[in-house]
Amino acid sequence: MSTPALRTSRTDLQEADKNDALAPFRERFSLPEDLIYLDGNSLGPHPVGAAERAAQVINEEWSNGLIRSWNDAGWFDMPSRLGDKLSKLIGGNAGETVVTDTTSLNLFKAIASAVRIQQQDAPERRVILTERDNFPTDIYIAEGISDFLNSVNAETNEHYEVRLIDEDLSLEQALDDSVAVLALSHVNYRTGAMWDMDAVTAAAHTAGALVIWDLAHAAGAVPVDLNGANADYAVGCTYKYLNGGPGSPAFIWVNARHQGRFWQPLTGWWSHAAPFEMADSYTAANDVRRFLCGTQPITSMAMVECGLDVALDADMGTVRDKSLALTDLFITLVDERCGEFGLELITPTNHAERGSHVSFRHPEGYAIIQALIGRGVIGDYREPEVLRFGITPLYLSYTDIWDAVEILRDILETRAWDVPAYRNRNAVT
Amino acid sequence: MSTPALRTSRTDLQEADKNDALAPFRERFSLPEDLIYLDGNSLGPHPVGAAERAAQVINEEWSNGLIRSWNDAGWFDMPSRLGDKLSKLIGGNAGETVVTDTTSLNLFKAIASAVRIQQQDAPERRVILTERDNFPTDIYIAEGISDFLNSVNAETNEHYEVRLIDEDLSLEQALDDSVAVLALSHVNYRTGAMWDMDAVTAAAHTAGALVIWDLAHAAGAVPVDLNGANADYAVGCTYKYLNGGPGSPAFIWVNARHQGRFWQPLTGWWSHAAPFEMADSYTAANDVRRFLCGTQPITSMAMVECGLDVALDADMGTVRDKSLALTDLFITLVDERCGEFGLELITPTNHAERGSHVSFRHPEGYAIIQALIGRGVIGDYREPEVLRFGITPLYLSYTDIWDAVEILRDILETRAWDVPAYRNRNAVT
Repeated sequence: MSTPALRTSRTDLQEADKNDALAPFRERFSLPEDLIYLDGNSLGPHPVGAAERAAQVINEEWSNGLIRSWNDAGWFDMPSRLGDKLSKLIGGNAGETVVTDTTSLNLFKAIASAVRIQQQDAPERRVILTERDNFPTDIYIAEGISDFLNSVNAETNEHYEVRLIDEDLSLEQALDDSVAVLALSHVNYRTGAMWDMDAVTAAAHTAGALVIWDLAHAAGAVPVDLNGANADYAVGCTYKYLNGGPGSPAFIWVNARHQGRFWQPLTGWWSHAAPFEMADSYTAANDVRRFLCGTQPITSMAMVECGLDVALDADMGTVRDKSLALTDLFITLVDERCGEFGLELITPTNHAERGSHVSFRHPEGYAIIQALIGRGVIGDYREPEVLRFGITPLYLSYTDIWDAVEILRDILETRAWDVPAYRNRNAVT
Repeated sequence: MSTPALRTSRTDLQEADKNDALAPFRERFSLPEDLIYLDGNSLGPHPVGAAERAAQVINEEWSNGLIRSWNDAGWFDMPSRLGDKLSKLIGGNAGETVVTDTTSLNLFKAIASAVRIQQQDAPERRVILTERDNFPTDIYIAEGISDFLNSVNAETNEHYEVRLIDEDLSLEQALDDSVAVLALSHVNYRTGAMWDMDAVTAAAHTAGALVIWDLAHAAGAVPVDLNGANADYAVGCTYKYLNGGPGSPAFIWVNARHQGRFWQPLTGWWSHAAPFEMADSYTAANDVRRFLCGTQPITSMAMVECGLDVALDADMGTVRDKSLALTDLFITLVDERCGEFGLELITPTNHAERGSHVSFRHPEGYAIIQALIGRGVIGDYREPEVLRFGITPLYLSYTDIWDAVEILRDILETRAWDVPAYRNRNAVT
């Protein structure tokens, strides 16, 4: 088998690594030496210092401070304080973001809140618009809200409805005067395709809809400017590109213009105007705390700050430039080195339409990913047939990309994936 | 000032401590030596081993295992596996409980689910019944559901309504044929008063209502037998008497007879029948996983198991006996030693009506609690005017109770609370 022509060499890439302004960030993560980790878009690695922060929470603040730490160690303010830090990464202002709960729950709050505003402004708008290729939980949450509201209204025709953009229904076609809210993922979890946040938000506003952006695969990965785009709501995840730790609490952002007006039904005491007055009826807080609900997991939440601090130390423009350079390199090398093995690129090649992960379809995608993991290259698999690779500039080098593709080529060439151990799908992550 | 007569002595109590079968459990908690901690009903202390468990999650499972730990370290199954352990403490079976989200959110799921069942079985029932003295979030969540459902039905008279039991409306009066669901706290957060779970559940069922128990101040504190009482749903907290750590994830239990039928609107992907098939529409899991929603905070959740393991090693009958002995002792000593200072007991003296905390009203309650904290006796304050003391048999001794009351008496006698530092209410926990 002939070796395809290469436009670059490992030596060239070692040189690129030497000139990489982000290279020092690799030392800020605790990663096994023998791995090439291309799954930071699913679970980011451990930022150095997070273990110590958790130990401080447990051994000092919890063990010794006990209940006093709600005030003395700043536990009460943590959702807002971390929210303010996170806001800087997504084009939000202080007081617009809280870190709390899960992305799914925060999306529920955002959609319910947008629906409520439309009930007042345009009650005939009863469509929640999203896309068929969105991360499933985003569709399911929209369905849950729609079903819940329709459950009391069975006798009328005024039903809420989830409408899905897909190959048969474009965004432009779908955005009619029945749409209450448009909820999209900025970067698609599977393909890495990225919507034009400015243009889509403007189009939806022109059509009379409110806009929610799910930033799960965008925050910390690509430049995001929510206020610049004049978006209404956003939600996202801290355990992917923000490296907050497994299942770390999510975030929710609301444009300041909706504060004092929006309402969401998860009306736990943390969202009350005066939670410690123990009033016997609900009055919503007059700010972003309306999106809080119950008591947060402090140890997991405290570690979010460690990841945020690393992200805030990096220049997002530099991160984006390297992300595009690495993803370009990955796409080129896979094409040149593995083109004969049937991998179909499903990530846009146009920079403006690409996030920070790269995906390919292959009928044996599942087994190939298992074989890669067996060789120390961790990507992940997503139905159907998708091999997904997170390209994270803070801890990946140009030579990592080269080495990963060489291992991929070897696996494909030798059919190393074609063994029962790698083709058994009992355990999918 | 004359010293009141005492029916016991510190020496007697030292003897009681020597004979205390639960005394060895004290060593299983990391507590400062110079504190008497009477706030375990707000935040339980650190069980020995929890810091090590968190370090294992962070340094081994996250740092080294990375994404593989969702399977290899059992992260995926944690909500169900810990739920099965917790079930044993509340009279539940395996497969009826999951550890997830917060108590407020789980109450939302339980009420919404009960309302949904009634929409099918008895759609004219539109009252959510709870009590004015319930923990506020329980009322607020009921209001949130009611408001959300009513928002689409403004034109009809068929509105959902939150009804509150109080001094003007007894449970018996309130339980009419409009009640869809009765949601009560088993043990009242403020007074420590305990409902008769068997009798109330039976009365509600006779009246046609479904029953939800909030076990926040009951799980791990008093014997609970949800299946014995034939309850429908329960929710509760792991960071109080179960010592799971600050803000550790909560739990939700559903009677097996509702499984496969119940539905709740927080339909995140973790509640899907096949979450990794990435289907573009929602199909609920056919078991207790229907109560899951999004990805959980693994580090905080992992520590829940440490607290559960301690609780499961203790015999709940022995815990209850000591709890009643300690609370009796505390009530008696406060009466005898502090009776002249105007503390009004608001906790029932009847054993069958008492949980495991004891509360008093005093016009200067806030300042007195601050003075106690200043002297190393940690209780807490709840509006209005309530001094609250959690009495936790696993790490409190009889002499602890004696010493706490002596310090309380000294503070009251010397008016040590009557200083600005203790009367300033800027910081309430």
